[in-house]
Amino acid sequence: MGVDARPETLPLGSAPTFPRRMWWVAARSSEVGDELLARRIADLPMVFYRTRQGTAVALADMCPHRWLPLSKGCREGDQIRCGYHGMLFSPDGSCADVPSQPEAAAGAAVRTYAVVERGPWIWVWTGDREEADPAEIPAYPWLMDPDWDRVDGYMPLAANYLRGHENVLDLSHFSYLHPGTVGTDEWTKVRPIIRVEDGVLYELRDLPAAAAPPSTAVLGVKPGSLVDRRNESRVPTPALHIATTTLRSPAGDGHEYHGAILHAFTPATERTTHYFFAAARDWQVGDSELNAKIQQIAITTFGQDKDALEAVEEVALTHPGELHELSVRSDKSGLRLRRLIKQRLLDEAEEQGAS
Amino acid sequence: MGVDARPETLPLGSAPTFPRRMWWVAARSSEVGDELLARRIADLPMVFYRTRQGTAVALADMCPHRWLPLSKGCREGDQIRCGYHGMLFSPDGSCADVPSQPEAAAGAAVRTYAVVERGPWIWVWTGDREEADPAEIPAYPWLMDPDWDRVDGYMPLAANYLRGHENVLDLSHFSYLHPGTVGTDEWTKVRPIIRVEDGVLYELRDLPAAAAPPSTAVLGVKPGSLVDRRNESRVPTPALHIATTTLRSPAGDGHEYHGAILHAFTPATERTTHYFFAAARDWQVGDSELNAKIQQIAITTFGQDKDALEAVEEVALTHPGELHELSVRSDKSGLRLRRLIKQRLLDEAEEQGAS
Amino acid sequence: MGVDARPETLPLGSAPTFPRRMWWVAARSSEVGDELLARRIADLPMVFYRTRQGTAVALADMCPHRWLPLSKGCREGDQIRCGYHGMLFSPDGSCADVPSQPEAAAGAAVRTYAVVERGPWIWVWTGDREEADPAEIPAYPWLMDPDWDRVDGYMPLAANYLRGHENVLDLSHFSYLHPGTVGTDEWTKVRPIIRVEDGVLYELRDLPAAAAPPSTAVLGVKPGSLVDRRNESRVPTPALHIATTTLRSPAGDGHEYHGAILHAFTPATERTTHYFFAAARDWQVGDSELNAKIQQIAITTFGQDKDALEAVEEVALTHPGELHELSVRSDKSGLRLRRLIKQRLLDEAEEQGAS
Repeated sequence: MGVDARPETLPLGSAPTFPRRMWWVAARSSEVGDELLARRIADLPMVFYRTRQGTAVALADMCPHRWLPLSKGCREGDQIRCGYHGMLFSPDGSCADVPSQPEAAAGAAVRTYAVVERGPWIWVWTGDREEADPAEIPAYPWLMDPDWDRVDGYMPLAANYLRGHENVLDLSHFSYLHPGTVGTDEWTKVRPIIRVEDGVLYELRDLPAAAAPPSTAVLGVKPGSLVDRRNESRVPTPALHIATTTLRSPAGDGHEYHGAILHAFTPATERTTHYFFAAARDWQVGDSELNAKIQQIAITTFGQDKDALEAVEEVALTHPGELHELSVRSDKSGLRLRRLIKQRLLDEAEEQGAS
Repeated sequence: MGVDARPETLPLGSAPTFPRRMWWVAARSSEVGDELLARRIADLPMVFYRTRQGTAVALADMCPHRWLPLSKGCREGDQIRCGYHGMLFSPDGSCADVPSQPEAAAGAAVRTYAVVERGPWIWVWTGDREEADPAEIPAYPWLMDPDWDRVDGYMPLAANYLRGHENVLDLSHFSYLHPGTVGTDEWTKVRPIIRVEDGVLYELRDLPAAAAPPSTAVLGVKPGSLVDRRNESRVPTPALHIATTTLRSPAGDGHEYHGAILHAFTPATERTTHYFFAAARDWQVGDSELNAKIQQIAITTFGQDKDALEAVEEVALTHPGELHELSVRSDKSGLRLRRLIKQRLLDEAEEQGAS
Repeated sequence: MGVDARPETLPLGSAPTFPRRMWWVAARSSEVGDELLARRIADLPMVFYRTRQGTAVALADMCPHRWLPLSKGCREGDQIRCGYHGMLFSPDGSCADVPSQPEAAAGAAVRTYAVVERGPWIWVWTGDREEADPAEIPAYPWLMDPDWDRVDGYMPLAANYLRGHENVLDLSHFSYLHPGTVGTDEWTKVRPIIRVEDGVLYELRDLPAAAAPPSTAVLGVKPGSLVDRRNESRVPTPALHIATTTLRSPAGDGHEYHGAILHAFTPATERTTHYFFAAARDWQVGDSELNAKIQQIAITTFGQDKDALEAVEEVALTHPGELHELSVRSDKSGLRLRRLIKQRLLDEAEEQGAS
């Protein structure tokens, strides 16, 4: 694909750009506990907490009576007592008490959301609850396998979630945005093999005998020395980008290092995103010093992405007149993803019209 | 009244929610003096000051020439000199000097507002000036009676003024929002007797042999001991809520304590409110230490109201999609007030159409 | 002209209020160098820098690919490398490199703007580039003449640029807004002779035997002593106001002092303005202490203007309902300027419709 001066029709132009019949990462597991956590997911205000059995639950974060966020109330056992007039809600959303009247309010239920905890992440389903099927949550064994080690983190982005996806699909940005960490020229030059299968986008990049980037110093691989690399990316749903990498240093003992980097982009609103990232590896498992170094590289690198994406969002917000995009070869997979998501949005709209 | 899942039609939905043919509390008396005080009342920018005779006056806070707020100018005797090109305005709004030309500008008058001072408060009429009738200002003798003592204060609220009214009409919030000060369960359980007479909403609550709340410790009444209480509330106009209370400790000498709590809610804009409060009593008159304690309780308690109301306003502003309310028994008087105010708004619109 | 209660039709009412076929001051010369300077001019995001030959250039501050501001990229010689995916742009706007593909992107050019440097200022043309004619930039020899000295500065204003023009056309504000510096009553009383010739607005003010203002103390002229003053103002284009002054102290040696004060008002957006000012003189040339004093007076005085103009803009933004202006005698030249600019805007709209 050469230069394409006719821009793709952007799903970014019309809101919402995110499907609702979806599992999204809502929180890191460690964020949800006894305390009430308020978080907006796909423009839905939610409150998260963990019952005494340890099960994470999510309710609409708004008392149906006079709208105080339930997150401003108090836990009473597994229930939430609204902090304004004391209505009491159970994890199933039913209203167990209206203090000002003898009978509870039958119609006072709050919406609840299906929640599933998988390794370091808590997922939430934003479609109709009865359609929630945990089998649709993509698998990510690297974040749970005891033979692997991992770090993970969270960053809020003041940018549409698709900009996050497009950023990690076009690795030609490595050399320019991340010269001090992951950037080497190979990422710019390599042409990924792209395919779409059952709605999943796949990318494959092979980089034989490529210069090791500065970030591989943590492996004991000298930056600039030649390594064989392979990078496989997939976007199983609009919620997640999974990149697995294999690195082999022919000059050394030929050992293969395996890694996985996961990017979960969850729309908070049309203009803001919860960004959850994780990096897993099968070497130096248990090395907490290495974990800390990787965490630092991730925060530096993804912080550079954050700065760029937020600057782009600011342009989109404040630019007078119509904005056009010029797409080039490295946008191929990003544009494929847009089409996949647009199709999902059309399908959702159609089914909603039919029902 | 049981649970009413069909929401009342909210006057909150369509702006403005406040009538204009009204007296509103504009300021505490102590706020208005020689200095120019800028304040927006019912979405009208006003400047307040006191003439050398001590009379409080209010002018539109905008020079009709090039719009600098007059509050950025200077006093010259009883007049205001605009700080931009020096036009001079008298308390009656007439223009006494246009420095750049020999003749004053006949058409340069600024709007003035009828102002009345009553005890601790300065009232302003936001309708046509010729219709201003001070007799329509509700009486509140407790704030002027030398046999009573009192404290008063001011708080800005980032919420519609009706949320303030509804808050103090539904006392079932006491136990949940103010557990440390005025909250006891009786306020939740008691069913007020409600009536409307000549456009005034009345509530009566009798609480015989009810547990004294923590805040009565200042009376020397042990929190939790049994007292007879009676609470009468009225909303004479959308500007003011007056609650009078009688408290008798049968276990003591049977003496009756009388108190009055006044809440003036003045719309600054549709989304912001000037909240003036006062608490008066007929015991320990002149006890400045007790005054300070009551002031502190008021600030703590009304600060909790402020937090809740502002959180609700934020939900109303940022919630995507249509918002519904579920009303319960304790909302009865709040809903009556909405209907009264809605009727006032319709009457105003009709008379405006007829004139 | 007496009081005119019928307001002029404001071009301020409908956006944009600024013509586009115009040269505007974009920056002080000292602001543009090797570093990339981002600045919005007439609502167009631009990036300014200086090539190695020292020529100032301006490009649209947005990569056509994925919209990162080019000002967040890096210089590579005379080119800018985008900081996201590394596209490289030349000063002529052409794309010299798309790292992710062998061929450069023919359609990837960014818009460039004609730039001219004159003395302390860098001008930019916001119309079609081929129509840019540097001869249309007004002359201001006082800022380049080696026999004169000068100071200049920059201030952002949160107000429409026309408010800046109207401020310096109606000098009746001197006594009220600047009593400590330039204000004396003569500026209020004098009636300027106003004429318009070839679209240029001229004002002439003669003040014979007028009291010297506090600011003339820097000349060794005692404030309050009598001086002959003449002030000639012109607005050659909506970008610039030029005031030249002659001051003679008859009580002294009769020497004439000549000065020039220039105000360049450049719209950033409809509501914000880049304000560039300069003050030149033909006496005490090379006196850096005097320069510092004049700079201080300018910052104090123009800072007072800024405060007033921003307060007026705030009124315009937040005032509910329709706003009317009452114009008086001293507004005559300001209103003439509005008509001139309105005509320019109509002409532009017509030519655009015809083309």
